[in-house]
Amino acid sequence: MTQFDFGDVWLVGAGPGDPDLLTRKAERLIREATVVFYDALVGEGVLALIPPHVRMEAVGKRSGRHSKDQASIDRLIVEAALSGDKVVRLKGGDPAIFARANEELQACRAEGIRVSICPGITAASAAAADLGVSLTLRGLARKLVFITAHSKNGATLDLDWKSLADQDATLAVYMGKAAAPTVSRKLIEAGLPVDTPVALVENASLGNGTRIVTRLDLLGLTANAALTDKPAIILIGHALGESATSSFCGPPQRLAEGTPAFRCFPEHR
Amino acid sequence: MTQFDFGDVWLVGAGPGDPDLLTRKAERLIREATVVFYDALVGEGVLALIPPHVRMEAVGKRSGRHSKDQASIDRLIVEAALSGDKVVRLKGGDPAIFARANEELQACRAEGIRVSICPGITAASAAAADLGVSLTLRGLARKLVFITAHSKNGATLDLDWKSLADQDATLAVYMGKAAAPTVSRKLIEAGLPVDTPVALVENASLGNGTRIVTRLDLLGLTANAALTDKPAIILIGHALGESATSSFCGPPQRLAEGTPAFRCFPEHR
Repeated sequence: MTQFDFGDVWLVGAGPGDPDLLTRKAERLIREATVVFYDALVGEGVLALIPPHVRMEAVGKRSGRHSKDQASIDRLIVEAALSGDKVVRLKGGDPAIFARANEELQACRAEGIRVSICPGITAASAAAADLGVSLTLRGLARKLVFITAHSKNGATLDLDWKSLADQDATLAVYMGKAAAPTVSRKLIEAGLPVDTPVALVENASLGNGTRIVTRLDLLGLTANAALTDKPAIILIGHALGESATSSFCGPPQRLAEGTPAFRCFPEHR
Repeated sequence: MTQFDFGDVWLVGAGPGDPDLLTRKAERLIREATVVFYDALVGEGVLALIPPHVRMEAVGKRSGRHSKDQASIDRLIVEAALSGDKVVRLKGGDPAIFARANEELQACRAEGIRVSICPGITAASAAAADLGVSLTLRGLARKLVFITAHSKNGATLDLDWKSLADQDATLAVYMGKAAAPTVSRKLIEAGLPVDTPVALVENASLGNGTRIVTRLDLLGLTANAALTDKPAIILIGHALGESATSSFCGPPQRLAEGTPAFRCFPEHR
């Protein structure tokens, strides 16, 4: 069991939102902390596990409405550690995946602060579990690629579409709602079939968000029509066509809560 | 809280090995089960959490010494569910990532068995936490790619090396020990710089395995010399050069247990 001393910092993965998907270690760390700096993406149920005597500070960043910039967050963490707090920096998902952990690690190390990472369940894993699919398929989806499609102030998405348009891969697009029409168009231009299965999952693991399975050429329309401002992940590839009960292929289909089975794309079988 | 009825099957991610990295949900499911079918990759500490009254069956597969083939495992799971068990299929890491979950999901659904997934911490996340690095870096490592380099009976690795040799990506190679020399040579041939930082992590999260940071051209040698038969993951890319205290660049460096800081590659800064 790793020690948590006064003056230490732990970057802790809060997972996708469901407090049941927190690790045992993360739960222990947030109970032992004296202060928790948390993201807007951290689930309410996770925050509810933090004991009342622990100081809680929201340092949330959400696309389009940053409440604190990264340098300010780094400074808050460092100051708390130097003042002798047991600091937890609680991040949605896994701290090592699209979570700006490097900046916080470097800021702590520059001050000689001991900083460690407790991993968390990342949104792609949680979304796959919600959908009841594997992200990899033996011989068919042999590569799993995570990208973020968040661009600052509407800047063009500078991604290598040719390499992303890989029929042997499953592509997980984090923060992809706004860019969904671009992602769809660029991948099709780069050679990915228009009927490639696509899943859109909002609030993965929480059971109260949108889950839709559709096809690549309908991704942009579907994202605009169906997604709200909740955190969403887009999954693209053969693997998303793996399913149980249906072989109907038509317009986007909204999945009932808790439905493990969903629309199947027989042309990929 | 999701229900676990008699006759249900849960594919449960056991995470990387440390029982503290099990999710709260996974812990609950293995305590509620009547039978647990587990992999050779599941940590001993995780197995120790299973109550004595729960039937445990090893169905482990390890590279080169399969104890049961996939079809036999599928059959065991289905038969247990049909006989009224609460079945947990406990898999190392995350069930959705290189874990043959699709076969088990389909086998259950074909029999009308309700089957669900509980996600787990995948080895790449755990290895990053061990190393104290982020797998993505803003503007520098914008893509995270998971592949498996396990090939049956020494068959040639049929991978798209050109697309994998991406300086903007972090590459996580699962089951890559045997193929390490090939991975190194192919990536260099495809254009990845010879001094690209590489980390090799054995027994991620358990604190008793090898952790080495080296460079791409030394990957093959290092893997052969230093890795044992424990499960290993290889991480490749700029992100692995992010570190705290050292700027020495030389032969592979073995990291002390629990060292968050490690060798840095200043030419990438």
